[in-house]
Amino acid sequence: MTSTLRPGPTNTLTDVAGLKVGHYHRVGAGWLTGTTVVLTPPEGAVGGVDVRGGGPGTRETDVLDPRNLVERVHAVVLGGGSAYGLAAATGVMERLADAKIGFPVGTVEGQVVPIVPAAVLFDLGRGGEFRATPGVEFGAAAYDAASVGPVELGAVGAGAGALAGDVKGGVGSASVVLDTGVTVAALAVVNAVGSTIDPATGELYGARFGLAGEFDGLRAPDESERAAAAEATTAVTGAGLGEPFHTTIGVVATDATLTKAQCQKLAGIAHDGMARAIRPVHSMFDGDTVFALATGAGPGLDPVAFNDVLAAAADAFSRAVVHGMLAATSAGAFRSYADIYPSAVKEWKRA
Amino acid sequence: MTSTLRPGPTNTLTDVAGLKVGHYHRVGAGWLTGTTVVLTPPEGAVGGVDVRGGGPGTRETDVLDPRNLVERVHAVVLGGGSAYGLAAATGVMERLADAKIGFPVGTVEGQVVPIVPAAVLFDLGRGGEFRATPGVEFGAAAYDAASVGPVELGAVGAGAGALAGDVKGGVGSASVVLDTGVTVAALAVVNAVGSTIDPATGELYGARFGLAGEFDGLRAPDESERAAAAEATTAVTGAGLGEPFHTTIGVVATDATLTKAQCQKLAGIAHDGMARAIRPVHSMFDGDTVFALATGAGPGLDPVAFNDVLAAAADAFSRAVVHGMLAATSAGAFRSYADIYPSAVKEWKRA
Repeated sequence: MTSTLRPGPTNTLTDVAGLKVGHYHRVGAGWLTGTTVVLTPPEGAVGGVDVRGGGPGTRETDVLDPRNLVERVHAVVLGGGSAYGLAAATGVMERLADAKIGFPVGTVEGQVVPIVPAAVLFDLGRGGEFRATPGVEFGAAAYDAASVGPVELGAVGAGAGALAGDVKGGVGSASVVLDTGVTVAALAVVNAVGSTIDPATGELYGARFGLAGEFDGLRAPDESERAAAAEATTAVTGAGLGEPFHTTIGVVATDATLTKAQCQKLAGIAHDGMARAIRPVHSMFDGDTVFALATGAGPGLDPVAFNDVLAAAADAFSRAVVHGMLAATSAGAFRSYADIYPSAVKEWKRA
Repeated sequence: MTSTLRPGPTNTLTDVAGLKVGHYHRVGAGWLTGTTVVLTPPEGAVGGVDVRGGGPGTRETDVLDPRNLVERVHAVVLGGGSAYGLAAATGVMERLADAKIGFPVGTVEGQVVPIVPAAVLFDLGRGGEFRATPGVEFGAAAYDAASVGPVELGAVGAGAGALAGDVKGGVGSASVVLDTGVTVAALAVVNAVGSTIDPATGELYGARFGLAGEFDGLRAPDESERAAAAEATTAVTGAGLGEPFHTTIGVVATDATLTKAQCQKLAGIAHDGMARAIRPVHSMFDGDTVFALATGAGPGLDPVAFNDVLAAAADAFSRAVVHGMLAATSAGAFRSYADIYPSAVKEWKRA
């Protein structure tokens, strides 16, 4: 069955009204890493998280437990640099505090604590310098770059150093507008021990979950390209670049009104979309983590309508992974899907 | 039944061989906050965590899930500054990375990611300046100050701005050597919405769990001091200092060999000791969090021996809370237990 649903205007996360996305990265001179921030409207968005990978690097995830007090988060930080990169969240907190955006805690207006959950992926050493990791300033710069415009995809922000299997990964995003008018969107930073590519055909696993027309131009790559890719993979691994650590991180968002517990469920279901697009996934050497955000501009949902949001979120995450792989560009020894399999993508253009 | 067990040589956390504790704080000119770091031996200690409060601020707690890959942590950071204070963990990570201490991830020796879980407490504005919070440099300074000597107690490090109810809180610590030779110890930073003091008698709840002689000199304060305290409490709350947010954080540690799952259990049981010493506790406005560390220098434990460690850890945490309250010194409007109830403590001296 082909879906009759359509993406939002940009087919990215910012189709959820009020969300902004900003990237900052450094590439070259030993660097190949970055930070991506998702900013909510000033009043925050109800948040959830699900950590499924065996090697997570996180910050401010306990606050998102549905049993706990604070319901709204003001930004989510996704970053490279493994646990070192958690520093970037401090830069975002500082910017938000300067703007007096956060959870009010003081006796004076504007005395706030910004709630900024974060998760990081492993890209250490991929640019050459092991300790070239995002610091506080990366978070501030990503914050300054944030906009409501279409999310820039590929080897940008947290995706600068991303690698899925032996293929260059990056930032992907997708959105869908449900029949109820509710928008659901995902942003994925694809950096996985596993692969996004079916070894039997060279196709991207997630492409089968596209909306009508979304991936129509894609086709299975030529046999000659697949043979060359298999050879190149062996060479790359042999060069010692096959370090075991990765991690895919992301955000799913909706403009519906959800409870904190519903956001936790939403984050969990997004991992199903990750599982359909990456195989193996959630390994002991991935720290796969997804955050959920509900801005609440739209209606609350009955169980059936909420269930539709869950299914759409899983598919949006799969689609975001595909867009990340298609938008990624080669970086040094790390070659992109489009460069490895030009025959697969030559008739496809992102709408 | 009076316990026949004895404390370790210093009756503090560093009685667990190999652990170091360091404090750094700033007091005055708007500041009243700080950071405390617990450093493990270079090879790390098996870690666990239990987050029980309704308003936690944490970093790197997901890595401690017993299902996940990394077993050993290299430091635990406890700090003031609410979520802003999580920045201090970055300073500790940098120092550890410079020393090549961490989880090995690279292709070259010394390429490590230090595992540094952190939790923070709320002390914002208590020194006068709302944004005067621990930054990266606080973590580095606490690291530089760390030693294997007796832990300094009271209004130091993360306890600089701590407040338990309306009474000055601080850093407390205690240890015990079990009949098996296993050492169990706790460090608590007492900063609670609730009180450590029984309103019926003015006594510290946790004092009844002391080892033989540990709190023998303490007695119920004079009626006149209790009446004055009740009056002063009203005045302080009336002055607008009764902001609702607090959080007690701490570490329990042992030299026994424990699994990661046992460490999670140990951290959870320590909260029972917190509950016996602070009432109410684990509120929606506390982010109460306890980490567990097992250095593994000693033996693995059968279920009965492990159960003895659990009971000892709960009591050690209660005792640590008492020592924190007794060691705390008044800071401005925040008066210490010893200053409020001089008759209670005049015959008590820490051994």
